[in-house]
Amino acid sequence: MTQTPRIDGARLTERLMKLGALGALPGGGVCRLALTDADKAGRDQVVAWMRELGLEVSIDRIGNGIGLRKGREGGPPVMIGSHIDTVRTGGLYDGNLGVMAGLEVVAALDDAQVTTRRPLAVAFFTNEEGSRFQPDMMGSLVYTGALPLERALPSKAIDGPTVGDELSRIGYAGEAPVARPRAHAYVELHVEQGPVLDAEGVKIGAVESVQGISWTELTLTGQSNHAGTTPMALRHDAGYVAAEIAVFARRLAKELGGHQVATVGMLNVAPNLVNVVPNRVVMTVDLRNTDEARLQEAERRVLTFAEETARAEGVGLARRSLARFEPVAFDAALVARVEAIARELGLSVKRLPSGAGHDAQILAAVCPACMIFVPSRKGVSHNVEEYTAPEDLAAGASVLLRLVGELAS
Amino acid sequence: MTQTPRIDGARLTERLMKLGALGALPGGGVCRLALTDADKAGRDQVVAWMRELGLEVSIDRIGNGIGLRKGREGGPPVMIGSHIDTVRTGGLYDGNLGVMAGLEVVAALDDAQVTTRRPLAVAFFTNEEGSRFQPDMMGSLVYTGALPLERALPSKAIDGPTVGDELSRIGYAGEAPVARPRAHAYVELHVEQGPVLDAEGVKIGAVESVQGISWTELTLTGQSNHAGTTPMALRHDAGYVAAEIAVFARRLAKELGGHQVATVGMLNVAPNLVNVVPNRVVMTVDLRNTDEARLQEAERRVLTFAEETARAEGVGLARRSLARFEPVAFDAALVARVEAIARELGLSVKRLPSGAGHDAQILAAVCPACMIFVPSRKGVSHNVEEYTAPEDLAAGASVLLRLVGELAS
Repeated sequence: MTQTPRIDGARLTERLMKLGALGALPGGGVCRLALTDADKAGRDQVVAWMRELGLEVSIDRIGNGIGLRKGREGGPPVMIGSHIDTVRTGGLYDGNLGVMAGLEVVAALDDAQVTTRRPLAVAFFTNEEGSRFQPDMMGSLVYTGALPLERALPSKAIDGPTVGDELSRIGYAGEAPVARPRAHAYVELHVEQGPVLDAEGVKIGAVESVQGISWTELTLTGQSNHAGTTPMALRHDAGYVAAEIAVFARRLAKELGGHQVATVGMLNVAPNLVNVVPNRVVMTVDLRNTDEARLQEAERRVLTFAEETARAEGVGLARRSLARFEPVAFDAALVARVEAIARELGLSVKRLPSGAGHDAQILAAVCPACMIFVPSRKGVSHNVEEYTAPEDLAAGASVLLRLVGELAS
Repeated sequence: MTQTPRIDGARLTERLMKLGALGALPGGGVCRLALTDADKAGRDQVVAWMRELGLEVSIDRIGNGIGLRKGREGGPPVMIGSHIDTVRTGGLYDGNLGVMAGLEVVAALDDAQVTTRRPLAVAFFTNEEGSRFQPDMMGSLVYTGALPLERALPSKAIDGPTVGDELSRIGYAGEAPVARPRAHAYVELHVEQGPVLDAEGVKIGAVESVQGISWTELTLTGQSNHAGTTPMALRHDAGYVAAEIAVFARRLAKELGGHQVATVGMLNVAPNLVNVVPNRVVMTVDLRNTDEARLQEAERRVLTFAEETARAEGVGLARRSLARFEPVAFDAALVARVEAIARELGLSVKRLPSGAGHDAQILAAVCPACMIFVPSRKGVSHNVEEYTAPEDLAAGASVLLRLVGELAS
């Protein structure tokens, strides 16, 4: 006799905490950089749990781990996934939640003795963070074919060895071909990593899209002069031009509204002395939008303003693109189901974009995909203080369970 | 039979170059930090030249060197002075010109067999630059009584020893009492260290005043957040507030006009990452004006704007005064004579303030004082590229000679 499957929040939290103990930092948080000994320990634990749950585990050639639960029929599985690598001073939730929630969905189905029509898969993708190897989201990129395996394997760690070296060393250079099994659909539960849900007291985020990202480095070259003896009209002040650009970017984001954000996060001034007019500034402008046309407009306007302001000041301007990704829209029907299921479960819900990158945006190229967000306390992430309340974790997993059940039926 | 005394430009330049060879840097420029072996070598050379010219040399307890040329009468001498210490990568002109021009005035009077009514004095003051010991203008401050000798002598060098230690070590802990002889008037010939005369093709600057200086350090404390996931309205961006302040300071200087200048020369951002909203900025605001009331207005307006902008962004603001000097006006009659003499000699002349500090501003507290500026190529100073053409040096010395002749007659 089958029952209605239910998430066991305590079991979910317990697995998360156990996983977080592997590579734990003194005082809290975790460091499980991709393909390190700590990552191996985390992988071994997850694979062990998968096997305990009766999943058929395969490791592919880029080290992605996929645990398969048979359905009443064959064909492509409904995939639940995320990653278990972390940044250097990471929290216990980013990525790990999506994988642990996948295991909890399986456990809940087992408890209720439910066999879905389609197979299910729980996946952890290699090196999502990109903190040790470039590019980030490497495992999902290779899985979908967006990044050839032979380009990923030679990628060098910040500490020397290649992805290929490290996969072999920790025993995760799998035999399974990449891109198998193809997914029927992909669902990822993740902490928001931003403040919106927490600030508004909303429990579930129905993630509509991942913002497009544009990172530009601007180098301004002026002339260093004495701050006392150089009249304002004779200055070529690289610092002043940088400040104007930073203010413009901020105002532009507010003017464009919607999901446009703009950040000047890095700004290095030379010679950086109280009484010398700066002759050189290297700064970055981070622009993001869920709408590609508006993102391009923001890029154009920042650049035009920078050029005009630099020219007026007699300051040279060079620019370099550091990163550029187009926005990704998640499957509209799946997003609508996330929203509807949350309401059915009595959970407050809000549609929002993701400001960070996720494996789900890569999977979206090959199958219907979506994400479910739960609140991050104060929006803090990539930080040992990252925290989501246990009841919020369980709420997100409950939405995931219901959605996956629908997709697999 | 006396003739009209005339400056020998070649002799002046030759002494300047000989002095510049002591502590010369490979590739040009000079490093003669106060009370180092190089400074001792420079002092020994200047004292030797003074004695060759028949001056009676005294070294006081702070190491100031004063060479006295008798007049037909006694009483306080007309003093020509400056300094021979340099910054770490200094030029051959800053300070040195004023002392070498003093020697050249004496030599020109000797050549013409002129004895002035009042005595003359040529002085070099200890540690004007402040590059090795604080405060700068130490020798003139002690000379005028603005800084007690017993507070100056224990001042520690950036490399360890005290002023007192180093004066003894290099043999310049003199026996002469400080503040003797009192000066009847003080005249200092100096390179402009700014671009105004060079840019306008003017040969002589009649320096009306020394700008007041206000250095403030502002520390802005916001919240570091993810550049993608944090909506603009929820940010507490210390970098944005800093940029607004930098832009405001610049615009304020242009609006106030006159001799107001404003510089944000130092700006340190944390964590200084492309994709993180800055949570901390330490920046400096350098404000200068020849008018104390306007300088106070500029200070008030920058602070009010900083407070309002920080408050609106939810960013904390702390401030600390790094330096504050009131403007100094030079003797109006002397400034008028510099201007008139330049015209009499057929030299283009412009009244202007000094943006840098000089011994003359200290001497102005105890006697009528003024300065004569000559052009600095491209305004470059405190730099091995510092340069003033030989004919400009001679022109400045000719104005000095005529003015000193008048004052001493």
